[in-house]
Amino acid sequence: MRTYAKPLSKLIDELSKLPGIGSKSAQRLAFHILSMEDREAEELAKSILDAKERMKFCPVCGNLTDGDKACDICSDVKRDRSIVCVVESPRDVAAMERTREYNGLYHVLNGVLSPMDGIGPNEINLKSLILRLQENEIEEVVLATNPNTEGEATAMYVARLIKPSGIKVTRIARGIPIGGDLEYTDSVTLLKAMEGRREL
Amino acid sequence: MRTYAKPLSKLIDELSKLPGIGSKSAQRLAFHILSMEDREAEELAKSILDAKERMKFCPVCGNLTDGDKACDICSDVKRDRSIVCVVESPRDVAAMERTREYNGLYHVLNGVLSPMDGIGPNEINLKSLILRLQENEIEEVVLATNPNTEGEATAMYVARLIKPSGIKVTRIARGIPIGGDLEYTDSVTLLKAMEGRREL
Repeated sequence: MRTYAKPLSKLIDELSKLPGIGSKSAQRLAFHILSMEDREAEELAKSILDAKERMKFCPVCGNLTDGDKACDICSDVKRDRSIVCVVESPRDVAAMERTREYNGLYHVLNGVLSPMDGIGPNEINLKSLILRLQENEIEEVVLATNPNTEGEATAMYVARLIKPSGIKVTRIARGIPIGGDLEYTDSVTLLKAMEGRREL
Repeated sequence: MRTYAKPLSKLIDELSKLPGIGSKSAQRLAFHILSMEDREAEELAKSILDAKERMKFCPVCGNLTDGDKACDICSDVKRDRSIVCVVESPRDVAAMERTREYNGLYHVLNGVLSPMDGIGPNEINLKSLILRLQENEIEEVVLATNPNTEGEATAMYVARLIKPSGIKVTRIARGIPIGGDLEYTDSVTLLKAMEGRREL
């Protein structure tokens, strides 16, 4: 049964392909788009095409940037160039930047080792990290991949790869989040929190 | 602080203007769009523009349709042309069509009377309903506006407008939904269910 005319059902189809958008949400969004000013809908469509066209990976660190040159962070002379924080995705860079504390450089793997999904060292942005470490005077590499199975495995792999070069390799602390509650913390996190305890 | 490059933050901005899409969801969607094939992203953008451009209101019933002619339902000769179901929105038509039982015509008000928001009889697609009733041989008008304050008020208003013409005016039944539970049903619904009781 054809419930909506073609252009509308096509729009609903396309919207429901997006993650987290079910068919009900897609309908709601589609009707909202139809009720928008022409200019607003054009802005939305244009922003999709613009982002696709202009956003590239930074040739140095692998973060998302507009244009083909080194990204803002890589080319910022005020940044500490002796420390590189390795993260899984551009979203992690954004999260780290929001702390306003870290002032070093980044390296974005754009993925994580996952043999089950056929993602090995060559499928992530790792080779360029090794080259970077050889060509620049970097003193410390902070491994800030996520504290889950793949993230931990990736951190271990990268650490073993870098260690022989003598560069200091660190891993971000895993423990109880601020505002968290010991009673409701899972035992693996609690174990990590104990292991990571520091003298006051 | 600028977290993402311009085209990406613009896309996130535009997406977060959509209803039910917060800034976190907008980020997730934007990153998903960046990871899509070029062709897929173009399809999405195109479907937005296409829907905006091609979807119009049916000149007869006010439902959404593609093109300037009467919609598929209005021009379907197999439909019962003696009964018109009045609904608030095209979505309600779709919901009604999903029942696969109703075979009459529709009239879409594209709104509901709401004096508080300055929406009076002239702001909804009502005048054309009256003309339709005058020009066609219609035997029954089913008022299927939503069973809430505005919907009920609109139904009452439309009923009073049509009554003098002698056309039969009915209102959809309000009661306990299938699968519902008397114990947890609000008293207004329960009252309506009692009022609407029928002999078996």
